[in-house]
Amino acid sequence: MSLYNKYAEIISKAVKAIGERTFFAQYPEHPKAYGSEAPELGKLAYEAQLNNPFTALLQEGNTEVVGEESSPFTGELLGIKYPFFKVDILVERGEATKKQWAKTSVEERAGILVESLERVVKRFHEIAWATHHTTGQSPAMSFQASGPHAADRALEAIAMGFMEIKRFPEEVTWNKPMGRVTLSQSKTYRAIPKGLGLVIGCSTFVTWNTVPGLYANLISGNPTIVKPHPSSVYPIAIYIAELQSVLSENGFDPNIVQMAADSSEQLITKDLAEHSAIKLIDFTGSTQFGNYIESIPNKVIFTEKAGVNSVIIDSAKDMREVMRNLAFSASLYSGQMCTAPQNFFIPESGVETEIEKMTYEQVVDLLQNEVAALALNKKMSGILGALNSEKTAERVRNIDNLGGRVVLASPKVSNPDFANARMVAPTIVEVDATNTAAYSQELFGPILLVIKTKDTDHSVELAKKLVAEKGALTCALYTSDEGKAAAITEEMNEVFAPVSLNFTGFSFMNQHAAFSDFHGTGGNPAGNASFSDPSFINKRFVWVGNRVPV
Amino acid sequence: MSLYNKYAEIISKAVKAIGERTFFAQYPEHPKAYGSEAPELGKLAYEAQLNNPFTALLQEGNTEVVGEESSPFTGELLGIKYPFFKVDILVERGEATKKQWAKTSVEERAGILVESLERVVKRFHEIAWATHHTTGQSPAMSFQASGPHAADRALEAIAMGFMEIKRFPEEVTWNKPMGRVTLSQSKTYRAIPKGLGLVIGCSTFVTWNTVPGLYANLISGNPTIVKPHPSSVYPIAIYIAELQSVLSENGFDPNIVQMAADSSEQLITKDLAEHSAIKLIDFTGSTQFGNYIESIPNKVIFTEKAGVNSVIIDSAKDMREVMRNLAFSASLYSGQMCTAPQNFFIPESGVETEIEKMTYEQVVDLLQNEVAALALNKKMSGILGALNSEKTAERVRNIDNLGGRVVLASPKVSNPDFANARMVAPTIVEVDATNTAAYSQELFGPILLVIKTKDTDHSVELAKKLVAEKGALTCALYTSDEGKAAAITEEMNEVFAPVSLNFTGFSFMNQHAAFSDFHGTGGNPAGNASFSDPSFINKRFVWVGNRVPV
Repeated sequence: MSLYNKYAEIISKAVKAIGERTFFAQYPEHPKAYGSEAPELGKLAYEAQLNNPFTALLQEGNTEVVGEESSPFTGELLGIKYPFFKVDILVERGEATKKQWAKTSVEERAGILVESLERVVKRFHEIAWATHHTTGQSPAMSFQASGPHAADRALEAIAMGFMEIKRFPEEVTWNKPMGRVTLSQSKTYRAIPKGLGLVIGCSTFVTWNTVPGLYANLISGNPTIVKPHPSSVYPIAIYIAELQSVLSENGFDPNIVQMAADSSEQLITKDLAEHSAIKLIDFTGSTQFGNYIESIPNKVIFTEKAGVNSVIIDSAKDMREVMRNLAFSASLYSGQMCTAPQNFFIPESGVETEIEKMTYEQVVDLLQNEVAALALNKKMSGILGALNSEKTAERVRNIDNLGGRVVLASPKVSNPDFANARMVAPTIVEVDATNTAAYSQELFGPILLVIKTKDTDHSVELAKKLVAEKGALTCALYTSDEGKAAAITEEMNEVFAPVSLNFTGFSFMNQHAAFSDFHGTGGNPAGNASFSDPSFINKRFVWVGNRVPV
Repeated sequence: MSLYNKYAEIISKAVKAIGERTFFAQYPEHPKAYGSEAPELGKLAYEAQLNNPFTALLQEGNTEVVGEESSPFTGELLGIKYPFFKVDILVERGEATKKQWAKTSVEERAGILVESLERVVKRFHEIAWATHHTTGQSPAMSFQASGPHAADRALEAIAMGFMEIKRFPEEVTWNKPMGRVTLSQSKTYRAIPKGLGLVIGCSTFVTWNTVPGLYANLISGNPTIVKPHPSSVYPIAIYIAELQSVLSENGFDPNIVQMAADSSEQLITKDLAEHSAIKLIDFTGSTQFGNYIESIPNKVIFTEKAGVNSVIIDSAKDMREVMRNLAFSASLYSGQMCTAPQNFFIPESGVETEIEKMTYEQVVDLLQNEVAALALNKKMSGILGALNSEKTAERVRNIDNLGGRVVLASPKVSNPDFANARMVAPTIVEVDATNTAAYSQELFGPILLVIKTKDTDHSVELAKKLVAEKGALTCALYTSDEGKAAAITEEMNEVFAPVSLNFTGFSFMNQHAAFSDFHGTGGNPAGNASFSDPSFINKRFVWVGNRVPV
């Protein structure tokens, strides 16, 4: 319990923060914890890892290695090799740890998990480099998303688990008065873990989308196998290695967490997912594969799949501010965030602003100007990052097939440091409201669609239908009319889409803060889970009560 | 909110009781609330209802009626007719109430729901008669199970819902320090109901198994259609009628709760369950139909199906006390409780007691004696009740097909008040441990199986496998060895079966108390839900957060 005592304050603050939902300092609370030499040490560690085997995992006995990561900035292979294990070995080793981890108290588990985060903190800069050169994120986003923001979500899962498992007393005496006698029973309540978990990572948010399920599994007693995307392994490998070290140093079998790296030629995801010993699956990725995962019977499944995020524009104080804000949201990591805006619903009659009544064309023009200006601003172009995959670049090249009118051809952009960076700035296409096929799909990457609608009611009707049928992680609404704001929010909430109202300045629709914003609602086709609502934890264990007469 | 204010104390006590899991007085807290004339008035009401249409529902416009209930005690039809509505009408009316009920605060919903229970309390005696003559339960069980114990479970669901929906603040201001400026957003959190619910009742515990899902749906804002079993409608019709009255009197559409009575010739369950508007289904009944329900895509489903409950006998203080206790548990309502013991695993080497070492044969003999004695004791035979259906009687008649040795042929019993009562006392059959087919199925009704095992380890192995593969609601263990007790409890808990240890006297394995015992764990094939763990509520709504910059 010593690790629990060490972190009891962090844990209790985190538990409180989940309930309050106001701001909780990002992880770690004191950024100076990194140390002043951290950036330089991180860079050195990253450079030392390149073209070398990743040896920090406490998983042994492999005969094969895999590794195919390449940098979206340099186009070159990272040359890192990870041990490869067959499915049966992974499952067998995971199963062997079940009893030990299930018997460990939630306090002890929490202590170990927070200790792993504290160690990962020291490697945030290495993780940032690893993320930058596997995902294509900018250095700043790589640091934030894979470091503090991911650790925040991990701590949130730990705290939610801690709270839920501590919810019922471990033991009570129950008395039932029965006239002259009283019947007494001693009762114990146990949160029994479901079993072996599998967390399937994606190629863009390698740690951020993986650690919630991983830490939620672990806090609730479920040993877990992490199957990273073959193109983005390094960042999450560091988290796993640190977890294994802490486990091992504290007398636990490090196989409580295992990494299951594989290769594009020898993918093991389906074999793992369908294995009868796997009881829990967390998945982030495409709708097609996510639907397959959800269809596997007798598993508890948590998914985040594709969604189509809408922007409904009715009216605003200052449309330029609106478009500046949206241009930023759409350009961040070249629209490769699951929360990026894609569909802009604008009424043909134009929009009211405090300054003037603007025509539809003027509004579209503003959007176009802001997106182009941002892409071409040398100081700001870093936010675009690079495209994670060639497929995304291809989607932009084939944009004419959509059947729309190109409002803004993707501006030519380059990265001053990396001549070979896979960079594509956002393109804007106007599609007809009747061309539902065009805008009823996620066009992952830097593609914005403008849809001319009859009026705001029509915009809401289309956007709501889209959420119900295709899902969405988020929705932006701009209106100066309080009545409309309430009514439209209610409509969108009915299909389980959260609404960001009149976001300008530093409020961006794609940012969801741990301990305050739920990420995903789990209620629409974009996924069945939410980081981290109570169900994100409660489905991972089963309450069992035992009784004995006293 | 006036109804909420009226019952705020009851609600807050219930919320507290859920967390504490110690005793909470059975509903209503003061049994004198029934009034001294209640028994007589209840009987009169019941008699007045016989052979008449049930007119208390606020559902109109039907052109057909249904009604086929008959008494397991008299063999006669009750002659009560209920309105019949087509699926489309029920769904359309339910859908029309969605917005109104979703917009109602959880406090107001809770007030209305508790008020409905307070009114049902006044009709507990009528409900008891209705239950007695539809299910075959004894008068005492009919009163307890359909009255106070059902109302307890309803209040538990209300309280769990109240607690979960009040868990996050409705509105907060979130501040993010960003150097010189602070980003502020106003955030609201809403528990959005999933949509229209369907609760499918069973023929034995008509209200007890129906009200948890019904009240859980209602407290979380989901209008609900109740589809009772055609052979047992009357008891739940009273609950629904009272709910509709309270709703209507308080300005709500009574169709927020609808009854969907049907007939064996024209069953509408599948059409209702598969309707796209139905988002939530609660089901109690057979494994076969439950598996079908669970297979319907895109619904949130809660099931209680068949299970096989085991008794593991290792050692005991006094084996006679053990067998007396188990004979009672097995005989209550002729083994037609989902929590009744069926399989008795006894080691061939016999069992140690504080008095003597008993042989296997002596132990079986004791069980046989106690079961027979109870059945033939005129004062106690009332506990058998009557068999709910002819199928159950047939199962006992065909017991020879099991391939076992009959240890106790079902003793001839009769009911002094009802010559035609469908009464069958328990039979005991010894089956070989290798005859897994015989004991790996629920033999619903008064059938006890004795399985001779090599030793207690063998018993546990068989019982554990049975839970994992066929499911169980509960498990009884008798051992005087503390180490064994802990180890076997852990084994059974691993497959999500709760353990009742060394139950004698007034502790019975089939009794699960609301606010203290979970009913079902939801973790094994006996069902995917538990009355009422947090998931029983949390799956019925979706957390959605909305944000606006301040």
